[in-house]
Amino acid sequence: MPWLRNLIRLSTAFAKQSPSPPLRRGVEAMLRSNPAMFTQSLRHFGTDAVNRRPGLEPTKGDEKPRVVVLGTGWAGCRLIKDIDTKIYDIICVSPRNHMVFTPLLASTCVGTLEFRSVAEPIGRIQPAISREPGSYFFLANCTGVDFENHQINCQTFSEGVDAIDHWNFKIAYDKLVIASGAQASTFGIEGAKKHATFLREVHHAQEIRRKLLLNLMLSDVPGVSDEEKRRLLHCVVVGGGPTGVEFSGELSDFIQRDVHQRYAHVKDYIHVTLVEANEILSSFDDRLRTYAIKQLTKSGVRLVRGIVKDVQPDKIILSDDTTIPYGVLVWSTGVGPSPFVQSLEIPKSPGGRIGIDEWLRVPSVQDVFAIGDCSGFLESTGRPVLPALAQVAERQGKYLAQLLNHVGKAGGGHANAAKDADFGNPFVYRHLGSMATLGRYKALVDLRQSKEAKGLSMAGFVSWFIWRSAYLTRVISWRNRFYVAINWFTTLIFGRDISRI
Amino acid sequence: MPWLRNLIRLSTAFAKQSPSPPLRRGVEAMLRSNPAMFTQSLRHFGTDAVNRRPGLEPTKGDEKPRVVVLGTGWAGCRLIKDIDTKIYDIICVSPRNHMVFTPLLASTCVGTLEFRSVAEPIGRIQPAISREPGSYFFLANCTGVDFENHQINCQTFSEGVDAIDHWNFKIAYDKLVIASGAQASTFGIEGAKKHATFLREVHHAQEIRRKLLLNLMLSDVPGVSDEEKRRLLHCVVVGGGPTGVEFSGELSDFIQRDVHQRYAHVKDYIHVTLVEANEILSSFDDRLRTYAIKQLTKSGVRLVRGIVKDVQPDKIILSDDTTIPYGVLVWSTGVGPSPFVQSLEIPKSPGGRIGIDEWLRVPSVQDVFAIGDCSGFLESTGRPVLPALAQVAERQGKYLAQLLNHVGKAGGGHANAAKDADFGNPFVYRHLGSMATLGRYKALVDLRQSKEAKGLSMAGFVSWFIWRSAYLTRVISWRNRFYVAINWFTTLIFGRDISRI
Repeated sequence: MPWLRNLIRLSTAFAKQSPSPPLRRGVEAMLRSNPAMFTQSLRHFGTDAVNRRPGLEPTKGDEKPRVVVLGTGWAGCRLIKDIDTKIYDIICVSPRNHMVFTPLLASTCVGTLEFRSVAEPIGRIQPAISREPGSYFFLANCTGVDFENHQINCQTFSEGVDAIDHWNFKIAYDKLVIASGAQASTFGIEGAKKHATFLREVHHAQEIRRKLLLNLMLSDVPGVSDEEKRRLLHCVVVGGGPTGVEFSGELSDFIQRDVHQRYAHVKDYIHVTLVEANEILSSFDDRLRTYAIKQLTKSGVRLVRGIVKDVQPDKIILSDDTTIPYGVLVWSTGVGPSPFVQSLEIPKSPGGRIGIDEWLRVPSVQDVFAIGDCSGFLESTGRPVLPALAQVAERQGKYLAQLLNHVGKAGGGHANAAKDADFGNPFVYRHLGSMATLGRYKALVDLRQSKEAKGLSMAGFVSWFIWRSAYLTRVISWRNRFYVAINWFTTLIFGRDISRI
Repeated sequence: MPWLRNLIRLSTAFAKQSPSPPLRRGVEAMLRSNPAMFTQSLRHFGTDAVNRRPGLEPTKGDEKPRVVVLGTGWAGCRLIKDIDTKIYDIICVSPRNHMVFTPLLASTCVGTLEFRSVAEPIGRIQPAISREPGSYFFLANCTGVDFENHQINCQTFSEGVDAIDHWNFKIAYDKLVIASGAQASTFGIEGAKKHATFLREVHHAQEIRRKLLLNLMLSDVPGVSDEEKRRLLHCVVVGGGPTGVEFSGELSDFIQRDVHQRYAHVKDYIHVTLVEANEILSSFDDRLRTYAIKQLTKSGVRLVRGIVKDVQPDKIILSDDTTIPYGVLVWSTGVGPSPFVQSLEIPKSPGGRIGIDEWLRVPSVQDVFAIGDCSGFLESTGRPVLPALAQVAERQGKYLAQLLNHVGKAGGGHANAAKDADFGNPFVYRHLGSMATLGRYKALVDLRQSKEAKGLSMAGFVSWFIWRSAYLTRVISWRNRFYVAINWFTTLIFGRDISRI
């Protein structure tokens, strides 16, 4: 319980008044002297010491074996959380230092939740990573894997900051877990990458929010024609899966509750359109889907069935040449394999994911596992590729952590030491059900294992309450659980925040 | 009480179940039909209506007079808050749609407070601006003033968003209040603008935070030399005024409490250096200053007296040729007149600010006032130019709102109608005192009107408590007051958030 430790530390902090000796200095003298004096104290910058970082060479027999995890999504983070740090050192490599609680991401775009409430830093998920001498988090991308030599190549990631060179470095692994996720698919439409915003990362939500608030303000400016106002304030969502539907619902909530009150001048110009090629929420059954369509339409969301064939800076064009002008375009049409996964020269599952066996191993090489959206069962296993869902990824992370802990305890933690180890029972996925919120205090809850199975499926206010409660308990840290609850409370009382920062 | 209204509205929302008739539609039919059907419902995008926005021409005698306010800082926002919207329509023009609660901005860089907790949207400060038909907020910069014709030129502001053209538009005013603030001074050092970050806006705090967290992670990467690690983690603050000192204090708090726990690998490499040409906190008396120096040094802040002569991408050079390598550079050396103020062809005060008389009027032209950091008393008034402080700006905003309300009530609201009006008593500034926090639950409080005057001045934990309580009561909205308190509470319990989003 880190918060308890903090509280104890804090209560003793007030008692301690004397500073630690190395910090004590003759301060007035320092300030009165001329600056040349400080040259000395700054001289340590001038000596280039040899880099003494240990442990990125292969581990020795008497050292802890090293698990290298690529990615900080649902799969990787659950693995990192559950792995036994007494057995293994963990190294996590990812371009972001936090996990995103994706089911609540749509709520952050309109200010129902704070961005920080849905981001969980890795150090909070697994404190060992910032404290243990052999465990690290590296803000980097993996650029290649040398399966034969048990080694990966990495490059530091510093997008958005100029004047920082990328550094390349290598990490030897005993076990490698690839959990690097998938990427949004755009079906080869170049304009989608350029002009649409995805909804997979916190910075996507920030971008959508900034665009939306900017357009709300720009449309208020003198001289803007009615047509341009309608375009600026037209939010088009492509893809009718849970993310697209939840975002549309949140957006219409925002429009009805906050825009009508705070942007009274332009409230009649703002609209939401949801474009889907097939049926919305296709994983839910007909009854729930019909309810969802009714609710969304009630909230003013226009539902359009169509296939997008082109995306231009200010409009999308459907396959029947209908053009839909937009001010904000959100793209949420599922995922496909990332360039990194494509570049790996190992057998793939149907759909181009990394092929795995029943124990989530990459069978052609030693000590490599793949979990989450980047992986799929090989055809030879006779199992279907599992859907790209948070619950699949999380369950795989949990299973693999147990498997690795088990192998490690049995002495098979080091590279090439688990060739004949007992891996226990294979991974079995049991679907726990699906949920989606529709805005306006309404949601769908389907607790059946498949569309045909028996069990609870319902829609409405009680479902919305279940949706909120369920996700609140799933939020990983107490800090964020507290903040999600507080954010919901203040949104209820004060409305959503509209400052564009 | 908008939150009370929201609560009442909410409690009735559950009772209402039937949707409003215009939203009711045959939804299943819609979804099953082909997309061509939707062409019709989207056709309104095709008709370009004539822009019907009223009211940016000069107001007529039977309309409310129009006050145009440039800027959303302390001065402008206080004016906007206090002005009587029954007498005047308000138009606010600013490149940001919120006010920044600047005394708490330094705390947001290290995650003690959330960015949103210190930003107050204009619509929350003055609800009329988003509701009244003649009142507007425009996200724009004023590019010039035609004093003779009572008219300003504006250009929309959309920094950070591509593919949006700037629009130019004009606004006729009855009263113009220039409260556009000052800009950070860099004493002609080009590198400062390029490589240093100021600490005046929320996006500055965001930039500092992102850089700091990036450097913490980069310095952990294999192959980084000790020298480079020290550079990356060297935070240099130039300017020892309250902002620089408070930021240094927050930073050393963050290092001692959070970095030591969460970045254990690099904790010995991170340092803070504060560079000041003269004395730090020169507005406080010797006793408080000595205390501040002692506290800062105790917390590990290095104090360097020196004049910066050059700023390079990775080091600053002092006038005695000492070089100080840095990873994060924060520049906080006071302010000077902005290019907009410089461009106005009206008499200036000493220091190049807009010259005003005792009633805060720009005497050479009709119906124009200037308040806050952009203005200063003309030499002819015999008064000194007031310091660029939040309390000066806020007091001027309050005074001018009362003056304008008084003039408006007396029928002098329209352009050129107040030539012989009674403006009441001139503005008198009475200094209420200064406060600065030093981190580690310590602060300075000086409630005397000047260094020589008698009164309360103290330093330590009680001061820190007064500092927090005072600012908590000064936060404008109940929402942000609640969030500041909650942020302080969670920082105490859970530590600071370190996700780099």
